[in-house]
Amino acid sequence: MTSRVILLIEDDPLILMDVEAALVDEGFEVVTANNGMLAIETFDADPSRIHGVVTDIKIGSGPSGWDIGHHVREAIPVMPVVYMSGDSSHDWEAQGVPHSVMVPKPFVHSQIITALATLMNQPDQI
Amino acid sequence: MTSRVILLIEDDPLILMDVEAALVDEGFEVVTANNGMLAIETFDADPSRIHGVVTDIKIGSGPSGWDIGHHVREAIPVMPVVYMSGDSSHDWEAQGVPHSVMVPKPFVHSQIITALATLMNQPDQI
Amino acid sequence: MTSRVILLIEDDPLILMDVEAALVDEGFEVVTANNGMLAIETFDADPSRIHGVVTDIKIGSGPSGWDIGHHVREAIPVMPVVYMSGDSSHDWEAQGVPHSVMVPKPFVHSQIITALATLMNQPDQI
Amino acid sequence: MTSRVILLIEDDPLILMDVEAALVDEGFEVVTANNGMLAIETFDADPSRIHGVVTDIKIGSGPSGWDIGHHVREAIPVMPVVYMSGDSSHDWEAQGVPHSVMVPKPFVHSQIITALATLMNQPDQI
Amino acid sequence: MTSRVILLIEDDPLILMDVEAALVDEGFEVVTANNGMLAIETFDADPSRIHGVVTDIKIGSGPSGWDIGHHVREAIPVMPVVYMSGDSSHDWEAQGVPHSVMVPKPFVHSQIITALATLMNQPDQI
Amino acid sequence: MTSRVILLIEDDPLILMDVEAALVDEGFEVVTANNGMLAIETFDADPSRIHGVVTDIKIGSGPSGWDIGHHVREAIPVMPVVYMSGDSSHDWEAQGVPHSVMVPKPFVHSQIITALATLMNQPDQI
Repeated sequence: MTSRVILLIEDDPLILMDVEAALVDEGFEVVTANNGMLAIETFDADPSRIHGVVTDIKIGSGPSGWDIGHHVREAIPVMPVVYMSGDSSHDWEAQGVPHSVMVPKPFVHSQIITALATLMNQPDQI
Repeated sequence: MTSRVILLIEDDPLILMDVEAALVDEGFEVVTANNGMLAIETFDADPSRIHGVVTDIKIGSGPSGWDIGHHVREAIPVMPVVYMSGDSSHDWEAQGVPHSVMVPKPFVHSQIITALATLMNQPDQI
Repeated sequence: MTSRVILLIEDDPLILMDVEAALVDEGFEVVTANNGMLAIETFDADPSRIHGVVTDIKIGSGPSGWDIGHHVREAIPVMPVVYMSGDSSHDWEAQGVPHSVMVPKPFVHSQIITALATLMNQPDQI
Repeated sequence: MTSRVILLIEDDPLILMDVEAALVDEGFEVVTANNGMLAIETFDADPSRIHGVVTDIKIGSGPSGWDIGHHVREAIPVMPVVYMSGDSSHDWEAQGVPHSVMVPKPFVHSQIITALATLMNQPDQI
Repeated sequence: MTSRVILLIEDDPLILMDVEAALVDEGFEVVTANNGMLAIETFDADPSRIHGVVTDIKIGSGPSGWDIGHHVREAIPVMPVVYMSGDSSHDWEAQGVPHSVMVPKPFVHSQIITALATLMNQPDQI
Repeated sequence: MTSRVILLIEDDPLILMDVEAALVDEGFEVVTANNGMLAIETFDADPSRIHGVVTDIKIGSGPSGWDIGHHVREAIPVMPVVYMSGDSSHDWEAQGVPHSVMVPKPFVHSQIITALATLMNQPDQI
């Protein structure tokens, strides 16, 4: 079957590699970015290629994970969005997009996978 | 019993009066603003006085209804937020705050009341 | 404001009048049918005119309330659908459409109004 | 149509009368109790007569509102349960029954009505 | 522990084998059918043996996946139902049963597993 | 990353070992108890160390799984709680805590993992 492509944004290289490996292990194809500007460029190059976004919140200068969430939903209103964060998870009520999932750090891989799978099922309901 | 205070933001005076009357009729106390700057000033003067926000999206220059949603949730993460909109309702997935309700115009009063009542029950779950 | 139009289908004239009056009292405009064939003709004449459907299940010969639910969702996938029923409510899991509401008879008016208002808010999420 | 009967438990006579009047105004039949022992006796006399329970938490000596919630759900697992409380609402996560609603005091009548109507629709899903 | 038995219906032999292997890998016992008539015969032979249904929509002549969903819910109203589909996923709002999950093709295995697990937990709530 | 610690309570040693292995395999750290008294002592020694509770219902004399659910939610209102049970699952509506998950026995591991992952994501919403 055709792959499902996830855009993964994280500036900590160890976490990036760890989550990427977990996603690949589940059968996803993964496109990565280590800062917000690169993430948005990658997404804008072909939005319809991306089936879900998993993003850290604080990713250096440039657009934050919150900005990325708003940006991808403007292009594709039903895009699944999963945030990963340590100290920013309490801002989700103010900055997150509706029907997104905040996964507080630290987490186990199943939390990311379950969040993505739940959002990708019945995308018309986001 | 003490009143429940709703901050209502709408720049169309007929809709403002109509919704205000409906809210008062249900037992709410209503504070109104006809633009975003005034809404934020009113809220910031005493955030804990406000128990729910009902806001139009396009309200002239200054902060939009989306901006107001983000602002009040930063101060009080469990604040109930209800948006009213005609042509902006499709932006809710990108600009709305989580666990808010979008009521598309035109609407009947029960849609606003039901949205507010549902969000005000069990506020810890927003 | 423009009215919100509800298509109400019920073959018991007393219940029909009672629910119609409750809906009108809440500000809805109501179009009625006392059998399934008439309901479908009324709907098909101008589907975009209808903003919600409230239907009994057993309405004589011809299409049932279950059939009406499937028919209107085929035309408009986000159409709010509320079923009223006495002895057929246990069939909802098998015959109802997703994100519809079953209101068991007898009921108070608030159950119909709350069901409709909840489904009409954020219609993209049905 | 046959009435829907609500068991209302509250030891403050002013609040009791106020909520009772609001429920009657919506078409409910109301049975009241001003303490937990009386509430349980009233319920046990004929559980199938009761279609919903609205209860204060602190109601003098004897069973609390939490105890009443557990008691009625043991008899009828799908019984709608609505709690009203001022300073005990933060205990809902530990003491409430699943799929119940906590309405924090002070409240407007619509919060009680919306909570009851939502729980009474599709009772098989509680 | 005793196995949980899933009835899997799919007419594409490659997808059937792929999903069957994924389910077995998670500890499910799997019964397969490659058309709707066989699926219904298998189910009717012993409905209480089946704990969940995963079905393609277009499966040749005979009953479709939509028909199978209605059939199994008539026998067991709380039966978990997961649909897999490419071009029919937009019909879910009209043809699906309530509290079912539509998994759009292509998918990763986790989407099927997460959908089944969520529906099998607390079956009384379907 | 730091581990996520699950408190697992089960008096059947085979099921205990089986579920413990499944949780460890997913990256959780597991603390076990084979009776209710030990479970509560373990939890009370350092409540903030525990990130989720998975408990059998009937665990000999002493506190039951229901009692453990109430106890841990009193200490930490957002604690994820998953119950496992054979013949007690029908008591969940009366004895469970809100926003908990009942996994009926027998189950596959994915049901426990999916329940935990869903509850651990966005803990502020429990």
